[in-house]
Amino acid sequence: MKLLEERIRRDGRVIGTEILKVDSFLNHQIDVQLLDEIGNELYRLFKDAGITKVLTIEASGIAIGCAAARVFQVPVVFAKKARSLNIGTDTYTSRVHSFTYGNDYDITVSRRYLSDADRVLIVDDFLANGAALNGLLAVCEQAGASVGGIGICIEKGFQPGGDEIRAKGLPLQSLARIRSMSEEGIEFFED
Amino acid sequence: MKLLEERIRRDGRVIGTEILKVDSFLNHQIDVQLLDEIGNELYRLFKDAGITKVLTIEASGIAIGCAAARVFQVPVVFAKKARSLNIGTDTYTSRVHSFTYGNDYDITVSRRYLSDADRVLIVDDFLANGAALNGLLAVCEQAGASVGGIGICIEKGFQPGGDEIRAKGLPLQSLARIRSMSEEGIEFFED
Repeated sequence: MKLLEERIRRDGRVIGTEILKVDSFLNHQIDVQLLDEIGNELYRLFKDAGITKVLTIEASGIAIGCAAARVFQVPVVFAKKARSLNIGTDTYTSRVHSFTYGNDYDITVSRRYLSDADRVLIVDDFLANGAALNGLLAVCEQAGASVGGIGICIEKGFQPGGDEIRAKGLPLQSLARIRSMSEEGIEFFED
Repeated sequence: MKLLEERIRRDGRVIGTEILKVDSFLNHQIDVQLLDEIGNELYRLFKDAGITKVLTIEASGIAIGCAAARVFQVPVVFAKKARSLNIGTDTYTSRVHSFTYGNDYDITVSRRYLSDADRVLIVDDFLANGAALNGLLAVCEQAGASVGGIGICIEKGFQPGGDEIRAKGLPLQSLARIRSMSEEGIEFFED
């Protein structure tokens, strides 16, 4: 998605060779016009996949999940990152390792909102090692829901998560796929 | 907002006299059509307030913040609930007490994304004791930003937060304001 790649080049800030900050437009401050375009692009990619529900993870997936869901005209569910006192015990859960923070956390989705009748579009802002995404896939498997698509805004293509997901035959599409990055610049994979 | 009140009556689940679960349509699974209507209603209420930015708090404020921001055609910023390794030290911060979890947490907003040039619409899903809202107001004060409006989806009008905010003369509007609730039913204040 050229618009997103151009925005990452213009406003993304690379720290070292692993951290890309996009908090001016995607995951702290959010440009809602760009967000609409991301929703439209995800629809273009997965409109024939029979999607009944969008699934994402708090916090920075929520905006993208909402943008997709409103174009698909289906509900969005966001996985929560720790057991909430109010969520009840009737949940699907999966343990996720955070490479950013060096710890583990549980993600939970209420059984009320995902079932074997659902065909799911999973979306998130970043894909690097794939830890959060594998957690969402585990939740879908527990629910018996099928995965109709996986739409990622920014894939760090130099980290293993994306290739591992593709090797499983899952329908992953990344809107911007980074080949390499440094403080000198960012290289994307060609489509 | 009659549409929201009707939805709360139909799909909200009251537990005891204090907990209202709206996770089937607002803060776990989200009905994006209702979300659009909430954005439209917030615009109707605050369209003349000169809003330059929407401010909310992760996680369940994000969807509402995005819905408002897209109608106002301004960016949305969401406060983060703990110091993130990636957010940097250049932040506005405020300590918030969680009555739900019985602990304290810090909220942070990068100084890059809020300034004395901003006129802010603060939005959130719930207002009860006002702890999170007061944290967001403190962040605005630190930034020197003026508050053009406060838009809450569901105010628990039997708890003190809303009246305390109104007593300060702040422009608070709640789309659904609950007078009392129990497992037998929910009473709203009249507009």
